[in-house]
Amino acid sequence: MGNLITLTTDFGWSDGFAGILHGVILNIAPHACVVDISHGVEPQNVMQAALLLADSVSYFPRASIHVSVVDPGVGSSRKALAVAVGETIFVAPDNGVASLAIAQLQSLTGSAPHAFELDNPAYWLPRVSTTFHGRDIFAPCAAHLANGIALHELGTPVESFVTLATLAPERRADGALAGQVQYIDRFGNLITNIQAEQLAAFSSTGLLVEINGHTLHGIRRAYAEVPPGQLLALVSSSWRLEIAVRNGNAASAVGGKVGDPVVVRESEEAMGR
Amino acid sequence: MGNLITLTTDFGWSDGFAGILHGVILNIAPHACVVDISHGVEPQNVMQAALLLADSVSYFPRASIHVSVVDPGVGSSRKALAVAVGETIFVAPDNGVASLAIAQLQSLTGSAPHAFELDNPAYWLPRVSTTFHGRDIFAPCAAHLANGIALHELGTPVESFVTLATLAPERRADGALAGQVQYIDRFGNLITNIQAEQLAAFSSTGLLVEINGHTLHGIRRAYAEVPPGQLLALVSSSWRLEIAVRNGNAASAVGGKVGDPVVVRESEEAMGR
Amino acid sequence: MGNLITLTTDFGWSDGFAGILHGVILNIAPHACVVDISHGVEPQNVMQAALLLADSVSYFPRASIHVSVVDPGVGSSRKALAVAVGETIFVAPDNGVASLAIAQLQSLTGSAPHAFELDNPAYWLPRVSTTFHGRDIFAPCAAHLANGIALHELGTPVESFVTLATLAPERRADGALAGQVQYIDRFGNLITNIQAEQLAAFSSTGLLVEINGHTLHGIRRAYAEVPPGQLLALVSSSWRLEIAVRNGNAASAVGGKVGDPVVVRESEEAMGR
Repeated sequence: MGNLITLTTDFGWSDGFAGILHGVILNIAPHACVVDISHGVEPQNVMQAALLLADSVSYFPRASIHVSVVDPGVGSSRKALAVAVGETIFVAPDNGVASLAIAQLQSLTGSAPHAFELDNPAYWLPRVSTTFHGRDIFAPCAAHLANGIALHELGTPVESFVTLATLAPERRADGALAGQVQYIDRFGNLITNIQAEQLAAFSSTGLLVEINGHTLHGIRRAYAEVPPGQLLALVSSSWRLEIAVRNGNAASAVGGKVGDPVVVRESEEAMGR
Repeated sequence: MGNLITLTTDFGWSDGFAGILHGVILNIAPHACVVDISHGVEPQNVMQAALLLADSVSYFPRASIHVSVVDPGVGSSRKALAVAVGETIFVAPDNGVASLAIAQLQSLTGSAPHAFELDNPAYWLPRVSTTFHGRDIFAPCAAHLANGIALHELGTPVESFVTLATLAPERRADGALAGQVQYIDRFGNLITNIQAEQLAAFSSTGLLVEINGHTLHGIRRAYAEVPPGQLLALVSSSWRLEIAVRNGNAASAVGGKVGDPVVVRESEEAMGR
Repeated sequence: MGNLITLTTDFGWSDGFAGILHGVILNIAPHACVVDISHGVEPQNVMQAALLLADSVSYFPRASIHVSVVDPGVGSSRKALAVAVGETIFVAPDNGVASLAIAQLQSLTGSAPHAFELDNPAYWLPRVSTTFHGRDIFAPCAAHLANGIALHELGTPVESFVTLATLAPERRADGALAGQVQYIDRFGNLITNIQAEQLAAFSSTGLLVEINGHTLHGIRRAYAEVPPGQLLALVSSSWRLEIAVRNGNAASAVGGKVGDPVVVRESEEAMGR
């Protein structure tokens, strides 16, 4: 088992919640290396955390323990889980927050996930609150895993767990591809659910991208290919269609928000009309 | 002495001040493990930092060095202190910012605090500014402590230090408990100064919580016990009365701010009327 | 080569970009110690990052690797660089973002910089995006350096690199010094480009500081020398003229922004008139 533990939460940084997770882990596993992926997930936004973690896990060592706590059901009957995929372990509530990353690693490694409910209180903190299982259950269990405790010591195998569905883009009768904005980053870049490979079906120069009444021509290689302030479409660092403004904020420029429709189609010219 | 050093400040994350503390410490003590509890304390809000640190320390290893720098008096005659409580050492300005955590650990461990003024310049950086003692005095002294330098090498014993007073809730003649909002977290949860144990005097179902004209019935076990968007009262992760909105922001919902009165009382029905 | 790697970027903390850099580095160099200086640089603000890094580097061990990625030209023909100054290595795009820190260390150590273009793909990630070279080129190259790979293995020596110019204050015919606001920190403190040493030419009590129609008398030693809420001038922790409000925000108080003129002159009285 690796000693690298990552954290992805909606706890923010200001209240000390994230720092306390570090403390709990280092108290149990002094040699763990704790890395914050993000504590800036929008409060209770399970899907945002799930997408973010799925885009991150392949860049970490396989033998990592990924703790992901966006947990609006804390204190209810929702299960606390640890899920192994090959050498990697995910520690998270059973609300799908780790499910996209689990699917991502399953597809990369070919390993099927094995899930356990974290129901052995011997590996929790002695006093468990009803509002902060990140501190009282998830972080301590991750720390014990980093210490080499076997997964099955932490609890009971479970047959299934909650898996989030991401919307795939639809191919329309006229050949256009209808997707949507899936994520908006710090720069205001609009990341869609359209995969880079799906763009190959279109002519590289005749392709049009439509969002909120704006039409962009072609896929650019880099932000610097257009003048500052101009909208462009390109392939994001997560290998999806991205709409950006060079040195600017595309979300502001087009009034973009998660869920907004994005259409890719051939121009009339490219279709020979 | 442990090699774990925590940081709690109002420096923010953007200007590099927090990163520089890491650099200063690692330059002196390359094997120190530096953990950020928070750099998001409101500028100059000594009480907020004091509460936050007091709620955090019990989750860190006892042999930790806690550096806490919210320091509006930097450059004035206020002392720079290191205070030992058992194995734990606090490094902070003498304005009370560490005092609630010191009291918390004293109560947990039974160890009396021993305070020293950090007046030995041999353990400061060579050039000391008048505006950034976090960098020039507190961080280097913490690093030397992590290297095993004894506390009394860093300065002169002092008899007393500034201690903050937190307001305790008042029991009113009619049996009601009158407290107040003490802390508002990232989620907009309102954390009061009413301890969970103090709620035991009331009937669990007939109890009412009043804040800013809103009345809540009973203490819930978890956010998920009420419908999304609804106000509820429950016990916080710091074991105090908390007012929250499920999947929402209680501070916005009730216009709550630190200091707002919160009253707990029996309902007329529970009192048999 | 040291194993300390610092990060200074405009990636923010919320999207996982910064966390991914940690992952990439630890995957290649498991024993590296990664420290965040800041990820809060204003998007695309190369000068802000350059100033921030220049004020930070002297507080880190000499044998550090400083990764600085504010990179509006990512994916264009701008070079990716590693620049050695004595034991220290800077890894950054060739847009000047590391140039002020390089000059700072060159002046401190007397070592001339040696620059290499990071053009050996053997040390990049296998799949390189056009929008996130921090992840795909800069972080992996820094990790290989931490592993002891020699700088010349990573690429080709280059003769020159982009260097930013900072504006120096001007001495006017009447003896006044005309500078400007260079940086505004979290507290709203206005840090100017006027060096502390340049203030020595003025009488300490008769000196006046003018900004946006406000006139401040004398240089104070500490914030606490004036009443709360009052404007003051003092020497910043980076040893430059700073304009602040005690327990308040000078940027708000004087409507200050980067580039605003700041004048230091003798008062009429001090000039014997």
